[in-house]
Amino acid sequence: MTSKKKLGKHTAAFTSLPKIVGHAAVTGEKEGEGPLGKYFDYVSKDPYFNQSTWEKAESEMQATAFKLALEKAKLTSNDVDRLYAGDLLNQCVSSSLAHKEDTIPYIGLYGACSTMAESLSLAAMAVDGGYAEITGAITSSHFCSAEKQYRMPLEYGGQRPPCAQWTVTGSGCLILSKDGEGPVVCASVTGEIVDAGIKDANNMGAAMAPAAYSTLSALFAETGTSPQNYDLIVTGDLGKVGSEILSDLFFEDGLDLGNVYNDCGMMIFAPGQDTHSGGSGCGCSAAVLSGYILNQMKLGIYRRVIFAGTGALHSPISINQGASIPGICHAVIIADKKESAI
Amino acid sequence: MTSKKKLGKHTAAFTSLPKIVGHAAVTGEKEGEGPLGKYFDYVSKDPYFNQSTWEKAESEMQATAFKLALEKAKLTSNDVDRLYAGDLLNQCVSSSLAHKEDTIPYIGLYGACSTMAESLSLAAMAVDGGYAEITGAITSSHFCSAEKQYRMPLEYGGQRPPCAQWTVTGSGCLILSKDGEGPVVCASVTGEIVDAGIKDANNMGAAMAPAAYSTLSALFAETGTSPQNYDLIVTGDLGKVGSEILSDLFFEDGLDLGNVYNDCGMMIFAPGQDTHSGGSGCGCSAAVLSGYILNQMKLGIYRRVIFAGTGALHSPISINQGASIPGICHAVIIADKKESAI
Repeated sequence: MTSKKKLGKHTAAFTSLPKIVGHAAVTGEKEGEGPLGKYFDYVSKDPYFNQSTWEKAESEMQATAFKLALEKAKLTSNDVDRLYAGDLLNQCVSSSLAHKEDTIPYIGLYGACSTMAESLSLAAMAVDGGYAEITGAITSSHFCSAEKQYRMPLEYGGQRPPCAQWTVTGSGCLILSKDGEGPVVCASVTGEIVDAGIKDANNMGAAMAPAAYSTLSALFAETGTSPQNYDLIVTGDLGKVGSEILSDLFFEDGLDLGNVYNDCGMMIFAPGQDTHSGGSGCGCSAAVLSGYILNQMKLGIYRRVIFAGTGALHSPISINQGASIPGICHAVIIADKKESAI
Repeated sequence: MTSKKKLGKHTAAFTSLPKIVGHAAVTGEKEGEGPLGKYFDYVSKDPYFNQSTWEKAESEMQATAFKLALEKAKLTSNDVDRLYAGDLLNQCVSSSLAHKEDTIPYIGLYGACSTMAESLSLAAMAVDGGYAEITGAITSSHFCSAEKQYRMPLEYGGQRPPCAQWTVTGSGCLILSKDGEGPVVCASVTGEIVDAGIKDANNMGAAMAPAAYSTLSALFAETGTSPQNYDLIVTGDLGKVGSEILSDLFFEDGLDLGNVYNDCGMMIFAPGQDTHSGGSGCGCSAAVLSGYILNQMKLGIYRRVIFAGTGALHSPISINQGASIPGICHAVIIADKKESAI
């Protein structure tokens, strides 16, 4: 017997409709100069965020996003029953050190650039299931800490191929509540690991696109919906290369993602900002969701959105050992309360 | 209004009692020679697990634990609705690469050595909430991949102080189901990050003990129970140093953990095995739970158990930058069905 909460193998329906009662985005200066800059709650001109290292800067940025989201929700950290957090750094230290002073039950996650969708899925499930009343979902990435860890120290001046993406300096936080006002989380779709055999760490869009195709296909099948049932289907972050692959994969199925499809990595930077295939990093989709998309939903411009976080599951060691880069994609359906029926 | 599922800020009650229908432990040879060796499902004499690198060996070990747990549950990987997995390697690659061929919705976690309890908590919640019918929880660690990443390559022959712990080569997997027979998961207690200011990566027991004290204190308060309500309270892994600190902290509260308290890190190795303060690594508590504790529960020797995973939230970079090592502890109450009332 299938429970009403389980719509399919991948899809969980949140029948109590957890509300997004607060959200905030914090970014670096380059992101602030991009097309969505005016939507971010705080843009730091100092890439160090007044700290002494890139890693501490990222923690500070994440702590700031959490503080601002709580303020906007008119809550304090003591009100939060669970915080679901993750980032790209080894051992996810920017998240754990950001919240070491908070007295909040804490769940650490690693989903690469899919982490915002992963954390939001789990935070919504805890509220919907009645295990918590108020939960938070937060992620971050920082261009400088990520370059140092995954590629080269900035000072080396490494060259990047056109298919490479630019790690966003950003953090986004959402606060969910069983009560209150705001866009609601209707369902989550948990993705499988999909390995397309890509081994080039500078071509993560190609590595992640098949996972996005797998998860979005499961979403449409298990919810009985199609792209035209949504105002926005947004991946985060396939970039230009990965987005085109995703559209092609659906086109082969006779499904046109059409004008409702976009990608956070392509939205956050303008073509002239020299970011090649676009933005990446789990702070990218987090900032675009928390800063731009949710504000557009409040204005009624978007009423039903699929937010699909995409991650590339690799490490410098796995790449050096010749392993391929599997992708993963987790999706969440967010809607205006009136449009929340699945 | 507090839902019946939320017993307190940290404690979620699983009223439908998800059943542990399969479990398996896989370890290296040293662990097989320890006091619990006969309980492990598979002990590999080859530390490489027939692979070419330590990281691939760890993936293979985790894949084997998953396969054996499924066999014992008489299930296939297609039956699993969600797999909650994590490990200690950078970007948790041993988990993601272990499951890249499995077609299972996958949730990546990072909780350092607390990951087995974290994954079990989330896997039980998904079943209890009706979002999934069958879920898996799995973690691993490998002495050689961990030494290489966190300390020094083995060939350097680094010296270890007496308070240091020995990363276990092991993996443990649990399969949960809404139906079936087996010990049940009654509740989970999600811990806060607790920073005691420890900065010595060779003294993780001291870094984690205050978090264990915080989480177990919350457990007793929010469930209205005390140590004598349990047959076994087991941390994993504080080692000798951390266990003594934990007992002292409770003793100051007038609470004697007494004979029911033990630590997976102290259980898995004999004093003569030269592991100093005992075992560690998220494979340690995973293997002790999956191999030993659950088998003892089936024999009726333990009927109510607190399994409390403890993690030290640091990275080599955070240590080198002078950051302290906060701890975290997540606990799960596992019981015989007849003893499951909270």
